[in-house]
Amino acid sequence: MQKQKPVILITNDDGINAPGIRSLVESVKDLGEVIVVAPDSPQSGMGHAITIGTPLRLNKVEVFEGIASWECSGTPADCVKLARDKILHRKPDICLSGINHGANHSINIIYSGTMSAAMEAAIEGVPSIGLSLLDYKFDADFTVAKQVAHTLTRRMLAKPMPEHILLNVNIPITTLTDFKGLKICRQAYAKWAEEFDHRVDPRGKDYYWMVGKFVNMDQHSGTDVDALKAGYASVVPIKIDFTDMKMKEWMEREWQDFV
Amino acid sequence: MQKQKPVILITNDDGINAPGIRSLVESVKDLGEVIVVAPDSPQSGMGHAITIGTPLRLNKVEVFEGIASWECSGTPADCVKLARDKILHRKPDICLSGINHGANHSINIIYSGTMSAAMEAAIEGVPSIGLSLLDYKFDADFTVAKQVAHTLTRRMLAKPMPEHILLNVNIPITTLTDFKGLKICRQAYAKWAEEFDHRVDPRGKDYYWMVGKFVNMDQHSGTDVDALKAGYASVVPIKIDFTDMKMKEWMEREWQDFV
Repeated sequence: MQKQKPVILITNDDGINAPGIRSLVESVKDLGEVIVVAPDSPQSGMGHAITIGTPLRLNKVEVFEGIASWECSGTPADCVKLARDKILHRKPDICLSGINHGANHSINIIYSGTMSAAMEAAIEGVPSIGLSLLDYKFDADFTVAKQVAHTLTRRMLAKPMPEHILLNVNIPITTLTDFKGLKICRQAYAKWAEEFDHRVDPRGKDYYWMVGKFVNMDQHSGTDVDALKAGYASVVPIKIDFTDMKMKEWMEREWQDFV
Repeated sequence: MQKQKPVILITNDDGINAPGIRSLVESVKDLGEVIVVAPDSPQSGMGHAITIGTPLRLNKVEVFEGIASWECSGTPADCVKLARDKILHRKPDICLSGINHGANHSINIIYSGTMSAAMEAAIEGVPSIGLSLLDYKFDADFTVAKQVAHTLTRRMLAKPMPEHILLNVNIPITTLTDFKGLKICRQAYAKWAEEFDHRVDPRGKDYYWMVGKFVNMDQHSGTDVDALKAGYASVVPIKIDFTDMKMKEWMEREWQDFV
């Protein structure tokens, strides 16, 4: 008896028409039954936003040949929730988000719509991977990223990881020849140093554009930023429990007089 | 010589006109120089969204007597970034976000605009607390929450915690008489089981409202959800490194053939 094909849910935050999601669909369509539910417009920087105050639209579209696809008016996290409840009526076997046009390593996981979709799947207990290419250009070359997506998806389907862990995968700008392979890493300690560009509108009122400069403040080795610099794709296992357990123990001792 | 008063930055996600932020301002204004920079409209469920594709507005307003206040067109995270760069021109000594009308315990930290503001401050190395009352009503009673805010802010200013740790504080619906005090906890493993309410608009097109049911799946003790049920305010130390270090070590062993 033939084993049923695994169901692969694909979403992103650049919108259903971005080349990155097309590359992802192409790279894994031989591994299972691919279903696409993705935002109908770019959602970069949406973090883990969900849509509660306005209703959501969900339209079946023909974007990828032979692949059942829906576009959604909501955020990446909304797409994952809607896909499960209204389209699949079950958990997918894996959820892939991306391939993002631009990096989501280190602190970017907090701001990233790509990663929030993967995180939403992990909350549901669905194995998931967020994939991002360090090239933010529309016509970026996804060749290496596609290979990484295929390799990791095959691995995750064959040897499932514990529940509620997701992978944050970033791929350097490189060629298949120069690509060094995968590296298991930790999230670098980094931030965006924002400077707001102050302007005055035609009516004389102030406004501001956010412009940020990425600052890697991590002094130690083993980070995703290091791995990417060295030509590896970084693979960071991410958990959804954000408790600082060491700090909790410290507070239980030091705050005894207090709580 | 008199020591300079600490600068207390206050923001929220319910908007600058919500009673919760007014309660927070009142509760801590004796502890330092309070500056308010908060969204000009409700931003619940915005997660860690930031505004990159549209410009931001920032207007000085008179909302709280004797307190310098600005309203911002952006998200809670935007407010913290703008406050630092364009108003304070330095780091505040502490950042307080809230008091939110509604719970932000357990998994809600991921979706919460209140917590994203506190997290943004923590990324910057600013001590920060996100505060939420379990009562989502506009006319909720913030008496206990105000006492908790004052107690914790005083403690944090007197005995700073390590950098890049923030506190997620939730306050039960209770009275000063029945209130049990603070409890150091870990984040409960929980999720929202979403069911989308399907409707049809006057033009015959489908739309969906997100409706969720909170499900606590945590089988063990010591969680924020448990503490709140027992009448305590829950205090969870949160870190901004989401790496699952145990999983990283496991992968470094088990994936040797692979990476």
